[in-house]
Amino acid sequence: MKEDLSRIGNVSLIEKIMQANRAASFIENGMVVASSGFTKSGDSKAVLLAFAERAEFDPIKITLITGASLGQHTDARLGTAGAVSLRLPFQADPVMRTLINEGQLMYIDENLGETAMHLKTGIFGEIDIAVLEASSIKEDGSIIPTTSVGNSAVFAALAKQIIVEINVSVPADIEGIHDILLTGKYPDKAIIPIISAGQRVGRDSIPCDPEKIIGIVFTDKKDSPADILAPDKTTQKIASYILDFLKNEVRAGRLTNALLPLQAGIGKVANAVLQGFAESDFGHLTIYSEVLQDSTFDLFDAGKLDFASGSSITVSQSCYERIFDNWGSYKDKILLRPQDITNSAEVISRLGVIAINTALECDIYGNVNSSHISGTDIMNGIGGSADFAQNSYLSIFVTESTCKGNTISRVVPMVSHVDHSEHDVDILVTEQGLADLRGLAPRQKAKTILQNCVHPEYRGMLEEYFKEACQRGGQTPHVIEKAFDCYKNLRLNGSMKRHHSLHESSLDQS
Amino acid sequence: MKEDLSRIGNVSLIEKIMQANRAASFIENGMVVASSGFTKSGDSKAVLLAFAERAEFDPIKITLITGASLGQHTDARLGTAGAVSLRLPFQADPVMRTLINEGQLMYIDENLGETAMHLKTGIFGEIDIAVLEASSIKEDGSIIPTTSVGNSAVFAALAKQIIVEINVSVPADIEGIHDILLTGKYPDKAIIPIISAGQRVGRDSIPCDPEKIIGIVFTDKKDSPADILAPDKTTQKIASYILDFLKNEVRAGRLTNALLPLQAGIGKVANAVLQGFAESDFGHLTIYSEVLQDSTFDLFDAGKLDFASGSSITVSQSCYERIFDNWGSYKDKILLRPQDITNSAEVISRLGVIAINTALECDIYGNVNSSHISGTDIMNGIGGSADFAQNSYLSIFVTESTCKGNTISRVVPMVSHVDHSEHDVDILVTEQGLADLRGLAPRQKAKTILQNCVHPEYRGMLEEYFKEACQRGGQTPHVIEKAFDCYKNLRLNGSMKRHHSLHESSLDQS
Repeated sequence: MKEDLSRIGNVSLIEKIMQANRAASFIENGMVVASSGFTKSGDSKAVLLAFAERAEFDPIKITLITGASLGQHTDARLGTAGAVSLRLPFQADPVMRTLINEGQLMYIDENLGETAMHLKTGIFGEIDIAVLEASSIKEDGSIIPTTSVGNSAVFAALAKQIIVEINVSVPADIEGIHDILLTGKYPDKAIIPIISAGQRVGRDSIPCDPEKIIGIVFTDKKDSPADILAPDKTTQKIASYILDFLKNEVRAGRLTNALLPLQAGIGKVANAVLQGFAESDFGHLTIYSEVLQDSTFDLFDAGKLDFASGSSITVSQSCYERIFDNWGSYKDKILLRPQDITNSAEVISRLGVIAINTALECDIYGNVNSSHISGTDIMNGIGGSADFAQNSYLSIFVTESTCKGNTISRVVPMVSHVDHSEHDVDILVTEQGLADLRGLAPRQKAKTILQNCVHPEYRGMLEEYFKEACQRGGQTPHVIEKAFDCYKNLRLNGSMKRHHSLHESSLDQS
Repeated sequence: MKEDLSRIGNVSLIEKIMQANRAASFIENGMVVASSGFTKSGDSKAVLLAFAERAEFDPIKITLITGASLGQHTDARLGTAGAVSLRLPFQADPVMRTLINEGQLMYIDENLGETAMHLKTGIFGEIDIAVLEASSIKEDGSIIPTTSVGNSAVFAALAKQIIVEINVSVPADIEGIHDILLTGKYPDKAIIPIISAGQRVGRDSIPCDPEKIIGIVFTDKKDSPADILAPDKTTQKIASYILDFLKNEVRAGRLTNALLPLQAGIGKVANAVLQGFAESDFGHLTIYSEVLQDSTFDLFDAGKLDFASGSSITVSQSCYERIFDNWGSYKDKILLRPQDITNSAEVISRLGVIAINTALECDIYGNVNSSHISGTDIMNGIGGSADFAQNSYLSIFVTESTCKGNTISRVVPMVSHVDHSEHDVDILVTEQGLADLRGLAPRQKAKTILQNCVHPEYRGMLEEYFKEACQRGGQTPHVIEKAFDCYKNLRLNGSMKRHHSLHESSLDQS
């Protein structure tokens, strides 16, 4: 490991350099440990893994709080070692997911913009140790982050002790792209004065009392790369509907050609949509999002994008290299900010963000489930989707109309779990079409969704449900005792499609 | 009718004075009509009723947009006359509710803070006529509202034509309590610079182009009084749990004795809670809410409340008289603002509001239904509850544990309609106890709710459900095909309680 001492501006801290396993030994049973890391970027590369190794032999459990998901299979390693009792606010590792759904570890799936406030109000107790990846430490002890900011600023402010991982694989001249504003505590929470995506409002490093730094570990491991799935026929169709819709909005005078700041969740649909912009007539676009993905840099290269604000750069390996090989051409067009700024209701509602997020399923009235399979098992979590959906100018949700060989319809009579109520969903898009739900009452929404979004193989079933529900009446008509029949069918028959005998038995009971 | 010409500062407008039925004749079939009025206060007292009278004989239908609910039985009269095709964003009239649930008129139940933005973006079309109650018109044509602001400022800005109802029953020296800030349109939406409940940020009248005023009607009818239900044993119990909880928060150092700005929904529980503050040790309280109710003025009189910000004064008749007989002692402690300011995510999240709202039902994981009976029929609507629940520092929901002679449990396995997801519910309170859900994962929330909030007659049923669900697994365990059995039982047997035969049949299917 190259110990690049020029990365430590505060010389009194040089004596704190140590190996990862020694730093990990500071972590004790029952501690609340916070770690940098947001969608696999800027996370701990050494100390948490050294801790996981130790925990394989040591009966030790911690609460682990991060920005969002970690890379390096850290969550899998920690989960397998039984080292985590409580995890928050987001994770996306399949091994840990299984443990969570088995009830072996508690998981608090939080709105990503809210964790900082929850920490400041003390509901998770004090943070014992924060592990923060840095590109360097300045003379005043403040920390220059790497490829994400996440919750690191609030962790540094609140943690009793701090371990810094200086990652020399990240160029030192990443310094300058971070915009750190601490909003303070109630009743003196500050105005967040952002009025455009590209506006800097804070300092370029995370304030940190050097006395709290108990260890500095050098690493040179790159972020785990993002898995980029190329657009396919389905995602391209969805993207084209959204682009056409936005063009119509421009034509109608409700938007200009620069649109409004864009947010896109992670996933191949969002990726396809953003790629679609590269070939469109839109221009001078801005992004005010959580995660800056490959498509962000494609849009820069296509000359379509003026500025991108996010909390992390999470890209494929080739994109990562492209960015840092041409750092000068991107550096002044990017800001990475704390996730309570990127995801703040205040800024999102002021800027009028156009938010594009992925639904796991939606129902005929426009309610969206982003997180729970058949209402029970968590997939990843709500992430930042509600922060954006609730406060955006346009809240767009995308999903394929079916999956698993059409055995599952992603449009159902009533979603099995509600992350976003119909009030926070403006536009629903599947490869079948786009439903513009703005200005519609629930019965009108149902007609629009049935007409535009459902797969032909499920249209009859859903239309019949809606018809029967309307006969029964209500603002949001339902046949409550049949609302979840599709999940029952799926459990019993491996498909949401109705089997005749079942249909009769449920009719008998009504 | 006393035509008090001193109330019209702009003399060129005096020629626009007319009778209500003539003003109502400007309303044509298919028009979008906006009206002042928020929780029965400051609404149209004459023109809409004259229009309803005409519509009894005339096949004419309009879209009606207000601040919130109207008084004077206006919605009932309009509904019965068949004069409304679309109603938004809120109404609370039982006659119109029936028509809505029968599907005879479309109702868009909106977050009250969002309508102004939706109007500015044009999704409801242009406003043809706005009917605005005023206490007076200033020389520049701007309008001094009466007991509510609601959406009147955005209506005045956007409407093609305006009818002003000058209500001489409201003292002219109500002038000065209104704080009108227009936030503008995207991409130039302004910062709302409120950092404390009592801070004035706007002007004292609603800007209005006098050229748009096509009629002025004098009225002298008082607002319909609020129905105040005295605290009873149940609501007092709920109130005492909340007060004890807040005292503990002060003891724990998370709040001071002045708490944080309070918001309370309409209803007897909220009323009981606020009355409880009058006899408490809390002091220098502030209110940042939608509606200022009797309890607000009781708190002023008890010397406990420093300031109250809202969008309307909605009080009982005796309280109304008390306020205006002692206007000098309240006037400088009150601000009435537009509802996109009182309910703005930006301000609520900055101030750290403590929000107390009423749930129709909640589930064992903390999801809340505020609006739909058994998932279908609307009660009133979501109102401002989500604006506050999503953005507050503490989101408290209250409900009785059962109703209708214990045939209905208000705590169910899964709510039949989700207005507020578990992410936006911090505290649940019934007369059985208080569940503090902060910092808990879903399974932990369920245990806390089962232990503290459910009625003894339903505890066994709910615990059994949760146990079976946990055996099946998941982050949010459910037995999806039994999740709504209680509603099925209610339909079939008039009670949510399980009947043995039904229980067996649902077991057979699982």
